[in-house]
Amino acid sequence: MTGDPPSRPLPRTPRTQLHRMRERAGRDRADLDAVLAAGFVCHLGVVVDGAPRVLPTLYGTDGDTLYLHGSVAARSLAESPGATVCVTVTHVDGLVLARSVFEHSVNYRSAMVYGVPRTVTDPEEKLAGLRCLTEQAAPGQWDYARRPSRKELAATSLLALALDEASVKIRTGPPDDGDGPDAALGLWAGVLPLHTSWGAPQPDPLLPPDLPPPPHIGDRAAPGPVTPR
Amino acid sequence: MTGDPPSRPLPRTPRTQLHRMRERAGRDRADLDAVLAAGFVCHLGVVVDGAPRVLPTLYGTDGDTLYLHGSVAARSLAESPGATVCVTVTHVDGLVLARSVFEHSVNYRSAMVYGVPRTVTDPEEKLAGLRCLTEQAAPGQWDYARRPSRKELAATSLLALALDEASVKIRTGPPDDGDGPDAALGLWAGVLPLHTSWGAPQPDPLLPPDLPPPPHIGDRAAPGPVTPR
Repeated sequence: MTGDPPSRPLPRTPRTQLHRMRERAGRDRADLDAVLAAGFVCHLGVVVDGAPRVLPTLYGTDGDTLYLHGSVAARSLAESPGATVCVTVTHVDGLVLARSVFEHSVNYRSAMVYGVPRTVTDPEEKLAGLRCLTEQAAPGQWDYARRPSRKELAATSLLALALDEASVKIRTGPPDDGDGPDAALGLWAGVLPLHTSWGAPQPDPLLPPDLPPPPHIGDRAAPGPVTPR
Repeated sequence: MTGDPPSRPLPRTPRTQLHRMRERAGRDRADLDAVLAAGFVCHLGVVVDGAPRVLPTLYGTDGDTLYLHGSVAARSLAESPGATVCVTVTHVDGLVLARSVFEHSVNYRSAMVYGVPRTVTDPEEKLAGLRCLTEQAAPGQWDYARRPSRKELAATSLLALALDEASVKIRTGPPDDGDGPDAALGLWAGVLPLHTSWGAPQPDPLLPPDLPPPPHIGDRAAPGPVTPR
């Protein structure tokens, strides 16, 4: 990470314009950065033979660039260079349990990024991008693990996508029918939060038994609910 | 849910064939059902003006049919009826922290379903499909909350997708470099599990203060880590 970008509005394009009104649109670049910073797995959408393909993969950010582990999509992208992709990152925060089924919803934060990805070939940028991916998922791990050799680097597919065209959708808070006629039903309504937390590290069975995890791994598990990072 | 389908192999098509070998391919329909049963939010991929669009939405299953909340994609699908979609459900189970950055991975379960969705218009099927979506996210809630009125039903967009063409990918277990040359580095390696759990229900502030959540909601929060369902 090269420091937070300055706060600025997200540019709007026809495909990043929201058409549904219940959710809040994140209007600022800081909203996008916050959603991206809270995860490490995205869903990468590509078009293959005219049909969509949605692939989970790892990502990391560096300023205005989104880096993606590209192995899952290497074949698809090689067949259609210059094609647009869509990257979506979603965090599910809870179920919104309303009085009526119709008003049920989900509290979530979601970011969608469009663009034409660039295959990273420069070894220096590839190393920097892989560092972003690694640190996004496991902060501290880049300096701890053995870094990629030249051969490993060549065998890794990395994509770069500019954060130029993106939208953010966020829903928070209670159900919307608390002041409507359904309130008279006397039903319980509210939010059932969904938490994500790291568990205790599970050592590789092939490790010597007395080797503790380093603090950047061992200290991550928390008794209470935490977000991934 | 109409009971478990009989165990049978998933049909293979060119686009559901796995090309990467590190993960295990789920070969049986039961693998698909297990991945779908463990979540309630999917990523729906559609093609709009030649570009992919990846939208998070709710899903539920009923036998061989995947039902999807279609509002997010209604516009996209209306513009290209008969177009194929891709639905991906991913559960991230942990980080695989290897000795080398190159061998880092993620433990996960993922399902991908392809097909041409059908817009559900029959009110009976729409009710049944919405019941699947509701019960998938919040078991017990369909019988508790007020069910959709005729008008609400008409205002809800529901898609049905046959579970005919699908693939499953699963990675479990420790890193792969425990018996390679990097084991001599003496670094800690293993898995950092990621858990998902329900928190304590948060009552709508507009509720009377003495109304407890019903057991199907209140009993869902568990002190230990659990999967969403």
